[in-house]
Amino acid sequence: MIITVVGLGVIGGSFVKALKGKGYDVYGVDCDQQTLEMAKAEGCIIEGYLDGHQIISQSDLTIICLYPSKVLDFISEHTFKKGSIVTDVVGIKSYFLNQALSRIDQDVEYISGHPMAGREKKGYLYASQEVFQNANYIVIQHEHNQIDKIEWMRQFVGQLGFKSVKIMSPYDHDEIISYTSQLPHTLAVALMNSDDEKYETGKYIGDSFRDLTRIANINADLWAELFFHNRDYLLASMERFEKQFDLLKQAIASGDEKSLKEMFWQSSKRREKLEK
Amino acid sequence: MIITVVGLGVIGGSFVKALKGKGYDVYGVDCDQQTLEMAKAEGCIIEGYLDGHQIISQSDLTIICLYPSKVLDFISEHTFKKGSIVTDVVGIKSYFLNQALSRIDQDVEYISGHPMAGREKKGYLYASQEVFQNANYIVIQHEHNQIDKIEWMRQFVGQLGFKSVKIMSPYDHDEIISYTSQLPHTLAVALMNSDDEKYETGKYIGDSFRDLTRIANINADLWAELFFHNRDYLLASMERFEKQFDLLKQAIASGDEKSLKEMFWQSSKRREKLEK
Repeated sequence: MIITVVGLGVIGGSFVKALKGKGYDVYGVDCDQQTLEMAKAEGCIIEGYLDGHQIISQSDLTIICLYPSKVLDFISEHTFKKGSIVTDVVGIKSYFLNQALSRIDQDVEYISGHPMAGREKKGYLYASQEVFQNANYIVIQHEHNQIDKIEWMRQFVGQLGFKSVKIMSPYDHDEIISYTSQLPHTLAVALMNSDDEKYETGKYIGDSFRDLTRIANINADLWAELFFHNRDYLLASMERFEKQFDLLKQAIASGDEKSLKEMFWQSSKRREKLEK
Repeated sequence: MIITVVGLGVIGGSFVKALKGKGYDVYGVDCDQQTLEMAKAEGCIIEGYLDGHQIISQSDLTIICLYPSKVLDFISEHTFKKGSIVTDVVGIKSYFLNQALSRIDQDVEYISGHPMAGREKKGYLYASQEVFQNANYIVIQHEHNQIDKIEWMRQFVGQLGFKSVKIMSPYDHDEIISYTSQLPHTLAVALMNSDDEKYETGKYIGDSFRDLTRIANINADLWAELFFHNRDYLLASMERFEKQFDLLKQAIASGDEKSLKEMFWQSSKRREKLEK
């Protein structure tokens, strides 16, 4: 079985590394020759290509690990093997999948995916099998997907170290992701930007501030795209957050110890449950 | 020089570990006999006491690593050596310091402190020298402090691995801490509590959600105390955050790409600066 991974950054690079020794014929496509040579030298790909047209036309599975708009360009510009599976790792699905399906050949099985993993740093050097270890994966099932292909995809991803692989619709994906991924990014950005810079902030922070603002260093082009194409769900999640934040504020302002502690107990209980 | 550390949890335990081999005579006071035995066996303290009255009366420096209200009880119940320095590690200062100064003997130099370090887990087992490595420390200078004693404290703390030791007033401390420590805790709690639990959340999270909610598992008694005694500064920080969050929301709702990206660039620039 021929698998081609397109874009050997942190995610694509982790795919080729996690696939090593699993019995597949893995190839890589990237715009950086050095990255391709490194992946080949490490035995993670059989061959690397700057131009993917030929290998893509022979691949049974193509894993496109590019930014959303680049995935759409790539799909438009390439012809995939008839009956093969093509997947992506894009963080929003409803809007994106409509675009992708309108571009791709009908005789290709397009199964969108979302590995909820990553690193702060970009590039193949930061890719590793560990990136996927204990992370969550979402396989997106749309109305035209074949059940057996979805099941194959679930099992395929299951070999790569993920803790959980869930199948869900693009709409459900976008709703839950607006809360678990996009809302945290809005909070980090707003937290960082609400600094009045009266003090030399970096000298007065602990790990909590570091942890909460790490993702405030954000790829503007990518996240503007992700936010705008998931606007309704994101705004709903932001509003749910605002309600809780306001309840906290009221309890603090009025000295309502009972309500404040109840909120702390609820968040503690939920956070503990999360790790189980 | 005799140093007694009171409360050998993560912070107190890290103090005795960081002090090992530095040439001081270090003693420990704790309510748990086993903890004292462990610290003695590791050579971190010369002797451990369940009742601290005698050793405290002989100590040149007493580092009280207990919860705020317990520190006040401890101060009230003990007699410190004349001319000795007493310090604490409490997270709020204006209210707390007034309370402490009204309880402590006039002939003792009370220098409040705040190591911005910690671990999620409690207890001596999680204490280590590494807890203080590259963390920030704030030495609080109030109007009755002697300058040379403050300077001694700054140098003393400087040996323990902290990246930065800053001297500031209790009011400035409480203002900056309302932003760098308390606000992140309110955000984590509100984020966790705004889950509508429609999905099995734990299966759809990545590291961003994990990082932002880690402190949502919060010690309710401690943090209610910290929040209420720093109410005005905390509410002001929460309001500054709300303004930024609202600007983000408006940009997303109206599709204002330019403004959204400017906010991303600002938060990214500030976050990068933080690590320098």
